[in-house]
Amino acid sequence: MSKGVSKRAEIVPPFIVMDVISAANEMEARGEKVIHCEVGQPSTSAPKGALAAAHAALDRDRIGYVEALGIPPLRERIARHYAQWYGVTLDPQRVVVTTGSSAAFLMAFLAAFDPGARVAMAAPGYPPYRNILAALGMVPVDIVTTEAERYQPTVPALAATGGGLAGLIVASPSNPTGTMVSRDEMAALSATCCERGMRLISDEIYHGLTFEERGVSALEVTDDAIVINSFSKYFSMTGWRIGWMVVPPALVRPIERLTQNLLISTPTLSQFAALAAFDCTEELEAHVRRYRVNRDLLLAGLPKAGFDHLTRPTGAFYLYADVAHLTNDSVDFCRRMLREAGVAATPGVDFDPQRGHRTLRFSFAGSTADMEEAVRRLTHWKR
Amino acid sequence: MSKGVSKRAEIVPPFIVMDVISAANEMEARGEKVIHCEVGQPSTSAPKGALAAAHAALDRDRIGYVEALGIPPLRERIARHYAQWYGVTLDPQRVVVTTGSSAAFLMAFLAAFDPGARVAMAAPGYPPYRNILAALGMVPVDIVTTEAERYQPTVPALAATGGGLAGLIVASPSNPTGTMVSRDEMAALSATCCERGMRLISDEIYHGLTFEERGVSALEVTDDAIVINSFSKYFSMTGWRIGWMVVPPALVRPIERLTQNLLISTPTLSQFAALAAFDCTEELEAHVRRYRVNRDLLLAGLPKAGFDHLTRPTGAFYLYADVAHLTNDSVDFCRRMLREAGVAATPGVDFDPQRGHRTLRFSFAGSTADMEEAVRRLTHWKR
Repeated sequence: MSKGVSKRAEIVPPFIVMDVISAANEMEARGEKVIHCEVGQPSTSAPKGALAAAHAALDRDRIGYVEALGIPPLRERIARHYAQWYGVTLDPQRVVVTTGSSAAFLMAFLAAFDPGARVAMAAPGYPPYRNILAALGMVPVDIVTTEAERYQPTVPALAATGGGLAGLIVASPSNPTGTMVSRDEMAALSATCCERGMRLISDEIYHGLTFEERGVSALEVTDDAIVINSFSKYFSMTGWRIGWMVVPPALVRPIERLTQNLLISTPTLSQFAALAAFDCTEELEAHVRRYRVNRDLLLAGLPKAGFDHLTRPTGAFYLYADVAHLTNDSVDFCRRMLREAGVAATPGVDFDPQRGHRTLRFSFAGSTADMEEAVRRLTHWKR
Repeated sequence: MSKGVSKRAEIVPPFIVMDVISAANEMEARGEKVIHCEVGQPSTSAPKGALAAAHAALDRDRIGYVEALGIPPLRERIARHYAQWYGVTLDPQRVVVTTGSSAAFLMAFLAAFDPGARVAMAAPGYPPYRNILAALGMVPVDIVTTEAERYQPTVPALAATGGGLAGLIVASPSNPTGTMVSRDEMAALSATCCERGMRLISDEIYHGLTFEERGVSALEVTDDAIVINSFSKYFSMTGWRIGWMVVPPALVRPIERLTQNLLISTPTLSQFAALAAFDCTEELEAHVRRYRVNRDLLLAGLPKAGFDHLTRPTGAFYLYADVAHLTNDSVDFCRRMLREAGVAATPGVDFDPQRGHRTLRFSFAGSTADMEEAVRRLTHWKR
């Protein structure tokens, strides 16, 4: 018996991007202007209607504990959102309001998987998937995806992992690549999960931030998936820590019990604000138009700066760049790019442990002026 | 391989008190007046200074993600709180801001214990201790405490559990009994933990809500404990979901990595509000005076209503009643008391699976008028 740090805590790696953010903040503290293409959050605040609702709730409400699954009006409003966006009729009882998508993943994994369960996901992908699973004693299984597959898991790739999988995580639009799965692909993945007794978890947190076609919800093809979403991205409410999930009926009560014990309830003020955010479409759609302009600007400008091997994102606010012709050490490359060109980006190792030393992620969630400046700086950077 | 609900999710029980709350709310919806002695939260809102800080932050700040361990001014302010309240000098780097004490327990257990680890705690006690541990694959070990021990774990009781313990949770003041451990007892428990290689976790979330002597922090006797606290009780900010912990230096970085991955960061607006709450002593101390009046009122009045076997709490806002002479089924008893007398209380089974069928918990966090009315109703209740 030795008192110390658990094995699980030891194996969880940090986000490398946090080191980039620290270095960028230090440069700014010294008075240098840094272009932030590293952070995965909107540069805007919550929409005005959400802010007004928060002010009003502060004056009116005690801001006490609320129902573990979320306040009923918000659960109902989210259910209505599925009718409006996807034409899907949804029982509000299947909606669970969560402390960001983070708590949704935590509760979904705890409720759906036992220790030792093997859960597959695309590499490159959002690092917390594998790190939360590992911290909870499950086994993340990388599906190494290719550019030809647009970095999304496919039925053949899933078959190639062999058996023994308990779950599959699909992220569309994907972080870090911004690529999406079609309705046919979603249906095929869902059918395969059903045949193999696997739980499909569909990460839809970048829905709404799409530039060509809208995102397909797993709920359009199955009632058996766990769908995870968030107010952080389209609704521009990161620091409010509020998201939601839609779960099969059999999981509602287990997740309610887990939430009562592990988290009690989701921040109350954030729930009032999120409810109002659904009425702020005009302001939010203006953000999406800006992201599209930013995307097009980087897709046109970055190749001239030597970043000519880019994924063309159809959603989210990320560009994934293959920089194998420029470096074999993306962490060092990002460090130099920040120091010498004043442009911060995220090294690919955060997203793809095997191949990420030759990739970068650029976020275009910032202002259009900043994206123009990023291109200008990188074009003049003497590497 | 079968897709369904995890074993861990199946074993986590609900809070029985939630059913009491639902039944009480239904009665109120029918127009009946219910006296709420079941809920474990202040009846007041956050202090005025915290509300003003939240309004100001909404107007000024983007409310984006912040540092995983909390905003530096809040970590520094919490460190200063230990100097002011306990005379303890504390490095702010050891302070971790958390999404309520709930997230603190989650992170502390994940960082300190491996699956299968046996962790001891007093019965009766706060139910999520054992339920969070079980959900994470650890083994909760009840120390069955007695009234003579004032329901707190003691060194002999700990010895009697046999070996093989990885940790001990001490709650002072305790939920549900309101009893406290002295400095000598805390020092003895800490020394025993040290000798046996056990991690001491000190739940201090009711500190400040004390009626005779102030609570002793484990930090007064050791730097090796994990101390958990919250803005929910003394600071009257439940729905804001904000708390903190103080951890040994070796655990800071593992907890930072876990938080980055599992939760990203604690609600930003709540951090600004909490920072201001430290300057609201006058308003908060008035709440404590009201709780003391309420306690004395119930201690004097309840025996006349037949509840004559009460723990005398020196902290928190709970009275624990032995009702063995009235019932052998506290769940049914609470249901009848609510329906017939209009007074809601929590059956002891939530806190003590073995003996709670003969105990109740009364919360006196409400108004003094409500406590007077509770005594009046219970005195006239024809059981």
